[in-house]
Amino acid sequence: MIEYDGTDFYGWQVQPGKRTVQGEIEKALSIIFGERIKVRGSGRTDTGVHALGQVANSFVPPKLSPERLKRALNGTLPRDVYIKEVTPVPPDFDARFSAISRIYLYRILRGRSPLKRRYTLELDYEVDVERMREIARILPGRRNFKYLAMKDEGECDLKRVEIKEKGEEIHVEVEANRFLRRMVRGIVGLLLQGGRGKILPEDVERILKGEKRKPPFAPARGLYLVRVVYPTP
Amino acid sequence: MIEYDGTDFYGWQVQPGKRTVQGEIEKALSIIFGERIKVRGSGRTDTGVHALGQVANSFVPPKLSPERLKRALNGTLPRDVYIKEVTPVPPDFDARFSAISRIYLYRILRGRSPLKRRYTLELDYEVDVERMREIARILPGRRNFKYLAMKDEGECDLKRVEIKEKGEEIHVEVEANRFLRRMVRGIVGLLLQGGRGKILPEDVERILKGEKRKPPFAPARGLYLVRVVYPTP
Repeated sequence: MIEYDGTDFYGWQVQPGKRTVQGEIEKALSIIFGERIKVRGSGRTDTGVHALGQVANSFVPPKLSPERLKRALNGTLPRDVYIKEVTPVPPDFDARFSAISRIYLYRILRGRSPLKRRYTLELDYEVDVERMREIARILPGRRNFKYLAMKDEGECDLKRVEIKEKGEEIHVEVEANRFLRRMVRGIVGLLLQGGRGKILPEDVERILKGEKRKPPFAPARGLYLVRVVYPTP
Repeated sequence: MIEYDGTDFYGWQVQPGKRTVQGEIEKALSIIFGERIKVRGSGRTDTGVHALGQVANSFVPPKLSPERLKRALNGTLPRDVYIKEVTPVPPDFDARFSAISRIYLYRILRGRSPLKRRYTLELDYEVDVERMREIARILPGRRNFKYLAMKDEGECDLKRVEIKEKGEEIHVEVEANRFLRRMVRGIVGLLLQGGRGKILPEDVERILKGEKRKPPFAPARGLYLVRVVYPTP
């Protein structure tokens, strides 16, 4: 289980010549074991997206206990990635395909704060949280969310879209069996336009069908992969 | 009143060729008013130190209301500085000399977190908070704290040193009429060594007198200037 600050990464997935989280972890494992080792994540996160609980699995030589491997990894990794937990798993465990759902959080700040700017979307306009909730209630269900996503498609079972107020922040928590590319940021973009009254509940079905243009994606810096859920064995 | 993320600044005070908070604010004011304008802060903060409530005053042409000046400044300043409040003050107000006390917060994190690393000290050892409190109780009073400071001296009235636990963080809050250079980081360094049992309460007086070497300064990134207190008019 991995926490990272996405700000200075080109996302999760290995890309030649780019600094990625997967790339850093594979490099650290390869240093520790002296051989090329790959990891498999539960899913990609885009450039700038953070994680509190990304999950990845790997086959490694049985030389170190989980606790010692965790220490060796954290001693080798840069400060913006941290391995929170190392656990042995059955050989058929697959961080991606074994997952039954993913939970993301999006943090919106009403106003501006230099100390939170890397980790929230700073809003320079007013939103009405009740209006956001009206939009949020329409979204859950099994459907193809392609019109809220970016060059991706397929059915997702969106289980919940919850909006909570925490002081000056608005937190949007979403859970689905899987998400299309940029889909969470598409949902938050929609909620924000709803909160401004620029999109009404009756517009939502038309947007989901591609009959009305979707609002812009919310930026990456407010987004966190919080938890990946696996069946309890 | 100013908030800033100190990470990418060479501290508050203008220095030729360096990016400083005072320098950025003076540049923004000079752009807005078309003439060279200076500001005076309540005190310096070092490289990497943050502020939630730094205070600075300035004489500006009476062209803009406080609200419009605030908007113009925030539209001109970089994202890591934010003007929280603009208020008219009497001509004899001086952000430095009118202040009656300064409040600083130091955030210590037990463990590691990529998402907090810019804003806390990540501890890779255990500390006993009760032992820290025993040291903290000895410190308040009027004295020359030169042996906890860096190349600075003079009497300070240290009013309180409070230690609170907030989840996985330990917060140290200190208040004094004034602080010597690096004094808060010297205090926190002392508390941490106390929390590890490496400094005992009976060592404190000797350290304050310069008879025993003081522990290393705590790093800048956990430190915040929270508030500057002025007499109520």
